[in-house]
Amino acid sequence: MEIKVLKNILSANNQIAEQNRRLLSGKSILAVNVMSSPGAGKTTLMLRTAEELKGKARIAVIEGDVSSSIDTEKLSQAGVTAIQINTDGGCHLDAGMVNSALLNLPLDELDIVFIENVGNLICPGEFELGEHLKVVIASTPEGDDKPHKYPLLFTIADALVVNKTDLMPYVNFDMDGFSRAVKGLNQKAALFKVCGITGDGIGDWGAWIMKKLNEIRANAGKSD
Amino acid sequence: MEIKVLKNILSANNQIAEQNRRLLSGKSILAVNVMSSPGAGKTTLMLRTAEELKGKARIAVIEGDVSSSIDTEKLSQAGVTAIQINTDGGCHLDAGMVNSALLNLPLDELDIVFIENVGNLICPGEFELGEHLKVVIASTPEGDDKPHKYPLLFTIADALVVNKTDLMPYVNFDMDGFSRAVKGLNQKAALFKVCGITGDGIGDWGAWIMKKLNEIRANAGKSD
Repeated sequence: MEIKVLKNILSANNQIAEQNRRLLSGKSILAVNVMSSPGAGKTTLMLRTAEELKGKARIAVIEGDVSSSIDTEKLSQAGVTAIQINTDGGCHLDAGMVNSALLNLPLDELDIVFIENVGNLICPGEFELGEHLKVVIASTPEGDDKPHKYPLLFTIADALVVNKTDLMPYVNFDMDGFSRAVKGLNQKAALFKVCGITGDGIGDWGAWIMKKLNEIRANAGKSD
Repeated sequence: MEIKVLKNILSANNQIAEQNRRLLSGKSILAVNVMSSPGAGKTTLMLRTAEELKGKARIAVIEGDVSSSIDTEKLSQAGVTAIQINTDGGCHLDAGMVNSALLNLPLDELDIVFIENVGNLICPGEFELGEHLKVVIASTPEGDDKPHKYPLLFTIADALVVNKTDLMPYVNFDMDGFSRAVKGLNQKAALFKVCGITGDGIGDWGAWIMKKLNEIRANAGKSD
């Protein structure tokens, strides 16, 4: 009986996710679900990405947090359009929350919506939001064993961003071991090595996002 | 109706947690629920703690992970009694899982059981395991804003361990700001600053654990 309840929740969620995806695709907006552990550097990456894409694409960030609006304040101060969702204890965003946020964004003036999920390597993997891409950020001080311990997120990711490469000299992180572990779960994911603080590697990541935006634009109208 | 199901689950969990606590207290065993983000250094802290307590207390570690037995292997190789629980997607340990693990440990030869929860700053806070103490590990590269973003765990903790102090020169972590944020949620929690890699600060942490073990021993028999 519990399983049935869960299935209903997931199926209701997926219907709203599909609505979100149609809304976004219809306006040629690329939506990216950004997932990671707490403190892996999602918001700093968003700030760097906004800088990198300036003049190329108009972006907004939907910020998911259990509590507080710290990250939205950081982004707004930097001139990035951002909107906060507080889950009040919930361990992931769901499609309904994202739908509410989308209704409060100036969609006709946007090219990319980044959805920064709640910091958690487990629960966000089970809830579609209507995104086109799932991106998982891993940070070097977390260690290279995360794909073994949290396989779902690493399996479903379209791209993996290894952040905080500036800390490599001071932490135990075997980049080759990490890459092998990821490849064992997921052959197709793109892998980027970046440092949100210094900006190292952000060019390649930004170019990949622009390529994906152009794919969405090329497909626009075809599926509707 | 969903809420009712959840209440039943939590109430059933709490009954088993109470059984675990009685079993452990009856044997004068201190049980510590160790919670943190993925990669904050729980297992390294367990290894250091085992070294620090050698000859003072006999310990075992229950390892909770979504998948893999990497951490149990590490502990076993270092001669620490350890047992693995895989939650297969579950985002936290529950009292039933811990009960099964306890039945597979040589309780009559133990003084302290550390329960290393699944790496997650949200869900583990809602499930009692039968522990006497809740300890939250924060690591400096995660940043100092975690108490604002994940208030529940920081509110219910008996102690906070700030790990990876060796990385302080290379990351943005305001220790005073972190302490103030914690104090705003929780006046009673003890605060320890440690480095699991170098062993810095482990003495104070070990002394606190021994003090808590002695309190359990002093109370043994009184409540049964």
